[in-house]
Amino acid sequence: MSDTATSGGVEAFDAVDLIHTKRDKGELSTAQIDWLIDAYTRGYVADEQMSAMTMAIFLNGMTRREIRDMTMAMIASGERMSFEGLGKPTTDKHSTGGVGDKITLPLMPLVAVFDVAVPQLSGRGLGHTGGTLDKLESIPGWRANLTNQEMFDQLRDVGGVICAAGSGLAPADGKLYALRDITGTVEAIPLIASSIMSKKIAEGTGALVLDVKFGSGAFLKDIERSRELARTMVDLGRDAGVATSALLTNMNVPLGLAIGNANEVRESVEVLAGGGPADIVELTVALAREMLALAGKTDVDVEAALTDGRAMDKWREVIRAQGGDPDAALPVAKETHTVVADRDGVLVEQQALPFGIGAWRLGAGRARKQDPVQHAAGIDLHAKPGDTVRAGQPLFTLSANEPARFERALEAVQGAWRIGDPGEPVLDGGPLIADRIS
Amino acid sequence: MSDTATSGGVEAFDAVDLIHTKRDKGELSTAQIDWLIDAYTRGYVADEQMSAMTMAIFLNGMTRREIRDMTMAMIASGERMSFEGLGKPTTDKHSTGGVGDKITLPLMPLVAVFDVAVPQLSGRGLGHTGGTLDKLESIPGWRANLTNQEMFDQLRDVGGVICAAGSGLAPADGKLYALRDITGTVEAIPLIASSIMSKKIAEGTGALVLDVKFGSGAFLKDIERSRELARTMVDLGRDAGVATSALLTNMNVPLGLAIGNANEVRESVEVLAGGGPADIVELTVALAREMLALAGKTDVDVEAALTDGRAMDKWREVIRAQGGDPDAALPVAKETHTVVADRDGVLVEQQALPFGIGAWRLGAGRARKQDPVQHAAGIDLHAKPGDTVRAGQPLFTLSANEPARFERALEAVQGAWRIGDPGEPVLDGGPLIADRIS
Repeated sequence: MSDTATSGGVEAFDAVDLIHTKRDKGELSTAQIDWLIDAYTRGYVADEQMSAMTMAIFLNGMTRREIRDMTMAMIASGERMSFEGLGKPTTDKHSTGGVGDKITLPLMPLVAVFDVAVPQLSGRGLGHTGGTLDKLESIPGWRANLTNQEMFDQLRDVGGVICAAGSGLAPADGKLYALRDITGTVEAIPLIASSIMSKKIAEGTGALVLDVKFGSGAFLKDIERSRELARTMVDLGRDAGVATSALLTNMNVPLGLAIGNANEVRESVEVLAGGGPADIVELTVALAREMLALAGKTDVDVEAALTDGRAMDKWREVIRAQGGDPDAALPVAKETHTVVADRDGVLVEQQALPFGIGAWRLGAGRARKQDPVQHAAGIDLHAKPGDTVRAGQPLFTLSANEPARFERALEAVQGAWRIGDPGEPVLDGGPLIADRIS
Repeated sequence: MSDTATSGGVEAFDAVDLIHTKRDKGELSTAQIDWLIDAYTRGYVADEQMSAMTMAIFLNGMTRREIRDMTMAMIASGERMSFEGLGKPTTDKHSTGGVGDKITLPLMPLVAVFDVAVPQLSGRGLGHTGGTLDKLESIPGWRANLTNQEMFDQLRDVGGVICAAGSGLAPADGKLYALRDITGTVEAIPLIASSIMSKKIAEGTGALVLDVKFGSGAFLKDIERSRELARTMVDLGRDAGVATSALLTNMNVPLGLAIGNANEVRESVEVLAGGGPADIVELTVALAREMLALAGKTDVDVEAALTDGRAMDKWREVIRAQGGDPDAALPVAKETHTVVADRDGVLVEQQALPFGIGAWRLGAGRARKQDPVQHAAGIDLHAKPGDTVRAGQPLFTLSANEPARFERALEAVQGAWRIGDPGEPVLDGGPLIADRIS
């Protein structure tokens, strides 16, 4: 009863028929998926039809072949970059997002030290999850938007780049993600996997390491769902000729001590100077090893590049190449509020999600895509789970430009940490790196 | 992350939260359903959000309480009629739609004979399912649109009325039905039940008989799904204070011999004259008995009113009251094409759906709401399953204004009937009335 749409040269189907197929647990053919994504991108399939389809996919799933077809169809909706002319291997990392996750900042220069190219296309934050571009924009002069040619030249000359993904890459994904966000279908594994992988494959990297988070501060709380997502994405990468592996990492506790933007840059620079929190160093080194191994560099001393200044030199080079001043002072908030321990004991709990929401409420994050972020706002932790604390000792400091924000941020973190007795189990959800999928 | 909408005086919720609840197999509260339907009607909840919700409802279902709340919320979106001032009981019938289903036409006057009021709000056809208003509009002068006052007056003075439902009744249902039609969620039992019952309860009838079809020519093919729909609607009616029962009726074979518009009026008049096909008489009498019993009239001779002319007199009175001329000639098609038996034998199969599609393609139905229908187009059957036929004997006649339509109609009915040997089982799907639900 609905009209059948035709679109440029592709076999035509009826959107309602395809929705019925998925609704009734059937499998969509390659031609059907190609048509659906193309017709949706062109506007022949309406948002309300695609939203019924995504809910049916959420609830009834997709086969490995369907997910691959969906990913390839989204890639085909836009341009596909190539770095073959660089003369060196490319390797990239993608994180599913967490609280205090600034790993891209020390990781990109660290890997670029070893004569590989790191084309790190990044995004902005939304909700309690921070964005790499927002963090870097704390650095005076640094710019996120490069042309494809600028990106290529910087990869050739410097070896690393962190910039915004152009709207020409997988435009179908941009349209579909915005729809999923308002229709309650964000957490569907086939849709997450095809969304991430369509952009990464279109980006043209030769190798890709996925940092798939699990735990209270992650997108998917449950490790088994994260494992399924990782497996799906590793398969997709391999099917598309990209050497891909994944680490499953624990996001129950904030990563490092800084949650925000400028403070995360500061912490990243500490790591590049050979210091910084142990968890950030551990994850940065592990991901660097993965990225380098996939690019064929197995016999390299990653830690040494952090302690001997080579990673720091690369960082300064990359920041300068994008107009930033690595020596400029980073913004500082007008107001701070410090919370202290009310008793002696051991910090046994520090939940990632409430601290992420707290930093967001202080102004570090945004509720809507078009909102600005406040680069100086955020939270600095002074103790991590397992640390012994004494009554009166600072536990964390909130920073904001408007003191009125402290109340709602404190509400968010209320009950999110706990001081226990020595010997009590620490509720950190286990080791930082839980598994590797390849 | 999406905005929370507020709307006049009702507690406000977030559409994405409600979608998540239903997606994750949760139950929506009464306040949530009230908000959802109100906000959707006012446009605060977007079509794409409602379409994700309806797919989640399709796949995860709704409890009896949720369906009742949804129905009551849709009623509350518009006006609610009342016939209390009539001084006589009201009783109505609703059919889920079939092929050759003209039962409302003889049924309404037959029931109105017994001093009850029959406020039959009807619809138009879509696809292979015909619409009562389309059929009646074959009668020169007859008009479907009455004001509420005209409807009330005619019920008081004549006792029966068949007219179009005003757009003021359950407007939320109109909006939701149009959305379901293009997003593949038409066949969800909670949504069908609340759609039908919101309009019927808002219409203000005191009693309601549901003719719930099953079989190849019905909306729901499977008798168990039809039974579930009937059970759900009978419960809804009872919960809203409307005396409600349902018959489960067989829609594997076309009802009667006429499929179209003018020819269905002709067949209805034959029934009112005491003749007509046995299946039409059987179903008309059974539904009339149900309607009268629910209105408190159990001791009445329904068949007598068909044979002694009282039902025919009432028909003529009702048609005249709405401007129609019961004696006017009905439209006749310009072209006919008759298909004859190619062998001697018994007609063992005659599938409803292909004949419905055939009549639609001849011009009797419409593909889109705004399309007109051709009143003279349709199919007249000359034999029914179980009838003995001889080679060369006419099996059915196609009527259309443009002979070019015959080819596609013949394609539709190709393989939809079969002549077998005497003694072969007749594939009619069993008795016409399979069950009664109350």
